[in-house]
Amino acid sequence: MISEIYDVIVVGAGHAGSEAAAAAANLGSKTLLITMNMQTIGQMSCNPAMGGIAKGQIVREIDAMGGYSGIIADKSAIQFKMLNLSKGPAMWSPRTQNDRMLFAEEWRYALENTKNLDFFQDMVKSLIIENHKVVGVITSLGIKIKAKSVVLTNGTFLNGLIHVGDKQLGGGRMGEPKAFGITEQLVSLGFESGRMKTGTPPRVDGRSLDYSQMDEQKGDEKPQKFSYSDTPKLTKQLSCHIVYTNETVHDILREGFDRSPMFNGTIQSTGPRYCPSIEDKINRFAERNRHQLFVEPEGWRTVEIYVNGFSSSLPEEIQIKAMKHIPGFQNVKVFRPGYAIEYDYFPPTQLYHTLETKLIQNLYFAGQINGTTGYEEAAGQGLMAGINAHNKVHDKGDFILNRDEAYIGVLIDDLITKGTEEPYRMFTSRAEYRLLLRQDNADIRLTSKAYDLGLADEQRLRNVEEKISKSDELENYLKETSLKPGIINPVLQSIESSPVDQAYRASQILTRPNITIEKLEEIDFIREKSQQFSEEVKEQAEINIKYRGYIEKEKENVAKLNRLETIKIPEDFDYSNINSLSSEAKQKLNKVKPHSIAQAGRISGVSPADINVLLIYLGR
Amino acid sequence: MISEIYDVIVVGAGHAGSEAAAAAANLGSKTLLITMNMQTIGQMSCNPAMGGIAKGQIVREIDAMGGYSGIIADKSAIQFKMLNLSKGPAMWSPRTQNDRMLFAEEWRYALENTKNLDFFQDMVKSLIIENHKVVGVITSLGIKIKAKSVVLTNGTFLNGLIHVGDKQLGGGRMGEPKAFGITEQLVSLGFESGRMKTGTPPRVDGRSLDYSQMDEQKGDEKPQKFSYSDTPKLTKQLSCHIVYTNETVHDILREGFDRSPMFNGTIQSTGPRYCPSIEDKINRFAERNRHQLFVEPEGWRTVEIYVNGFSSSLPEEIQIKAMKHIPGFQNVKVFRPGYAIEYDYFPPTQLYHTLETKLIQNLYFAGQINGTTGYEEAAGQGLMAGINAHNKVHDKGDFILNRDEAYIGVLIDDLITKGTEEPYRMFTSRAEYRLLLRQDNADIRLTSKAYDLGLADEQRLRNVEEKISKSDELENYLKETSLKPGIINPVLQSIESSPVDQAYRASQILTRPNITIEKLEEIDFIREKSQQFSEEVKEQAEINIKYRGYIEKEKENVAKLNRLETIKIPEDFDYSNINSLSSEAKQKLNKVKPHSIAQAGRISGVSPADINVLLIYLGR
Repeated sequence: MISEIYDVIVVGAGHAGSEAAAAAANLGSKTLLITMNMQTIGQMSCNPAMGGIAKGQIVREIDAMGGYSGIIADKSAIQFKMLNLSKGPAMWSPRTQNDRMLFAEEWRYALENTKNLDFFQDMVKSLIIENHKVVGVITSLGIKIKAKSVVLTNGTFLNGLIHVGDKQLGGGRMGEPKAFGITEQLVSLGFESGRMKTGTPPRVDGRSLDYSQMDEQKGDEKPQKFSYSDTPKLTKQLSCHIVYTNETVHDILREGFDRSPMFNGTIQSTGPRYCPSIEDKINRFAERNRHQLFVEPEGWRTVEIYVNGFSSSLPEEIQIKAMKHIPGFQNVKVFRPGYAIEYDYFPPTQLYHTLETKLIQNLYFAGQINGTTGYEEAAGQGLMAGINAHNKVHDKGDFILNRDEAYIGVLIDDLITKGTEEPYRMFTSRAEYRLLLRQDNADIRLTSKAYDLGLADEQRLRNVEEKISKSDELENYLKETSLKPGIINPVLQSIESSPVDQAYRASQILTRPNITIEKLEEIDFIREKSQQFSEEVKEQAEINIKYRGYIEKEKENVAKLNRLETIKIPEDFDYSNINSLSSEAKQKLNKVKPHSIAQAGRISGVSPADINVLLIYLGR
Repeated sequence: MISEIYDVIVVGAGHAGSEAAAAAANLGSKTLLITMNMQTIGQMSCNPAMGGIAKGQIVREIDAMGGYSGIIADKSAIQFKMLNLSKGPAMWSPRTQNDRMLFAEEWRYALENTKNLDFFQDMVKSLIIENHKVVGVITSLGIKIKAKSVVLTNGTFLNGLIHVGDKQLGGGRMGEPKAFGITEQLVSLGFESGRMKTGTPPRVDGRSLDYSQMDEQKGDEKPQKFSYSDTPKLTKQLSCHIVYTNETVHDILREGFDRSPMFNGTIQSTGPRYCPSIEDKINRFAERNRHQLFVEPEGWRTVEIYVNGFSSSLPEEIQIKAMKHIPGFQNVKVFRPGYAIEYDYFPPTQLYHTLETKLIQNLYFAGQINGTTGYEEAAGQGLMAGINAHNKVHDKGDFILNRDEAYIGVLIDDLITKGTEEPYRMFTSRAEYRLLLRQDNADIRLTSKAYDLGLADEQRLRNVEEKISKSDELENYLKETSLKPGIINPVLQSIESSPVDQAYRASQILTRPNITIEKLEEIDFIREKSQQFSEEVKEQAEINIKYRGYIEKEKENVAKLNRLETIKIPEDFDYSNINSLSSEAKQKLNKVKPHSIAQAGRISGVSPADINVLLIYLGR
């Protein structure tokens, strides 16, 4: 028995657990982070990268909320790319390649320098529950540690089972033991659990590759970064390489299909649809004769290479044999095979929006335990679980981000409303207001919330306020500045945009495609003014001007839907007796117990007709 | 099946395995290093320090031989101390405190930059044996990898069983899985195996300690280093702290004795005598009312602290309760409990001097698998096993270091001649020629051997030659320089050494205690000359002059004993039929199969009378 009673115990020190622990501790909770191995805090289990489409937005949201993922990704970055720059700003997505070891080192360093945060190395085997409330944990050494709340972030460790061909090994990651005990206890308490599957590609020796046969993919010329704080920008970067599989590679892989746990029935659980194994891709897209691979360095000081896109649970010798037919991989040497891993998860409809479980008070779930995939999704949930665990034990209100406020809001609402039967990954398409949820404005959306909570300091708040006022100033200037044809036409002609025959406001010109503030800076007096503003502010003003119409429209939609959001449904509402509801709706509504009409409407199987019935029933 | 046929496969990537792999690869062998987890290469499983008494000499020997341990210890050092400076130079022992994470990082970096060296992450489950010769390994994934030789360095992983109080967990280190399969196979092949035990203390949160109640122990003012190469010297250092247990601490620890696996019969195997658990110390030295503890930082960027001297397998709550009564530990928070671990070893009398097994050709053992304890002992064996595995598969001769050439020679000769029934640790007292085996002259003793093998480059050899010639030059100068009473007496009087009444050679004055070259530098013309020489050279010349008599005497003894070393005994010599041998001698000689009369004489149970019998029998 450890004498201290913690406010929050976080189990697991991956992306979810580390963010949860940092948030709770920074808010002032006496927090304990329990990990099976203190040497593996902040591990990137899979790809050595952070961010990407929709995920990069989440990292920026976490950063705006005072989380650590953005800072650590910046400090350990070896390459930065802003993806989707050819599309609209809602699609711009920052992504870093990272030094795997440095990432973990920086996480541990950051956590060790977090006040109120203690550490303990052991496996949590069970929870101590009293009157449907969690009050502590028991470790594999039989140590009891009391707490007012517990956040479970077990990742792939709960009854983790690793598959390589027809071989199976218990483990939470290759070379690390699995965790057990928690699933069994939760199921006995009435929780529903399931199995999911994920996979990882082989790691190979970079010295054995011939990069001249691949396409180099450099980082951005002007690398940006995740954090709105003063983390440094990259001054040098490492390149990735792109290469493609071919028919020969596919044929060889097919040889192993009868020994693939994916195809011979050994693995029954569902893997991530948008991050499939190479055998899955070959099988599902039989018509395609090649698949793209990203050859990614694992860090500044290692020759290890991550073969992104070649995730596999085929027998090792098949993996190697097939790889040798990839251009540049003729002499490949493998460090570690790809493998699949099955693990326990708990369908997230068993949670409130706070990520607290409905069955056991003060117990929170975050990350893969909720059926998600991805570091960023895990980190975002961890942050929210940490905040809410703190708030709960300090009698503060729930902290929920709405779907129009953050991808994190979309993520959690999707999870608890719709559940998920396959590893859930974020996409911009999942957000109905994605033009509002941009990577450039996460600070504007969230910093004041973080400040109110106590996670962002005064300085962060002032930075945002200044960004907004400067952006307004520049916007107003552009709205007020008239450009005569003689001045603007040479600019327009230089990019083959049709000339004007009367004066237009600079802001009007800016709504044309291909016209940017940078372009307008060819005009001396505009340049003189705009040079007073940072790149960030210019970007903000430009987006506001260019997309004003769309943004306004989305805000209107938000307002409309928010009216339904305000029609709350009591938690103990019993749908069974409302005869006019479809039976499917009754069942789903009773299971999810939506907190509002809006949430009820997002449940699959609940129709607009059902919503009307509910509205009538609730007196609207 | 991996198609490549390796010259040398090394199993395990701790101190022994990493040195073995580096040596074999640097000599030109196609080498494969197999580890259960590539994230844990070069782990310091126990204390974050390298060197110490007799061990520091081994690290310098490894460095002189072209091994990596000294370089990596230097690069990751946070503190340097030359121990035993108040004693004679045979006792001077360098020691570093190290940054645990950086140490592992530097090992991995060094290995990845070693030519001919491949890596593979998996557990080796069995060996492929053909006609009493090892020809490869099979991993837990069923992958067969062929090799001409195999070096096993399994550390504490073979059937590792962790004990904390009455709890037991399978594992090779806390939080890491055990290895299995190899012991069972080797036993079925006729090997004798046993169990040993070791332990490690708790790691605690440095933020919870009050250092004002402890004695600070700073590093040396002029920190030296291990490597004879150009590794940097420390420019800043971290301090350790010293503190003592007390009767209250002991009383609390005694409360847990009935649940101690050491005392209640759960652990039967023998632990390291000179690194006992705190409960062992209390039990064995009941009259002592305190024991010294070293409070050691784990690195530059971590708050984690290693409580050296408090190794324990008592129940966690007893460990914590007792620690809270150590001065400065009143509010201690524990990161990881201390624990004991039992593991399989193979009595090393089953090996040749090359560390090849007698039963299976081309199979080598190094490190804890041979019943040793200590990073340095492991690394030294690894180096020798790597060299010999390379030599064997390239039809080169055995490479053996004699007892008068290196502590590594003493270590291996002790192991294979005497065996060991408890974890074997090196001491200066184990070396009969310790005045020859000094830390300052490891380069002089070994560099030319390393150069002949191909492990040291030309530059290293030239450095040593220059060190010798410069030292000779200074020695000769001091032998030829006459000091008149008027010049030397003020120096002597300043340290209360009796004055002289006639001129003496500087070298003669130097043989007095307390007189050093540094002291003689108070005389202008000596200083002018000696300033031309490096500190290293001055140290060498001083030792040569001061200890010449003793050194000569030891060299004579070596020569005498080496005559017995040259009387070889054929490997198939059958002692059973020599009636005049004692029956104990017959049994031991048949088991050890000494390669020379000298080695036979070192076997416990073989008397001088037996040796005389053998000498007659061999025609001497």
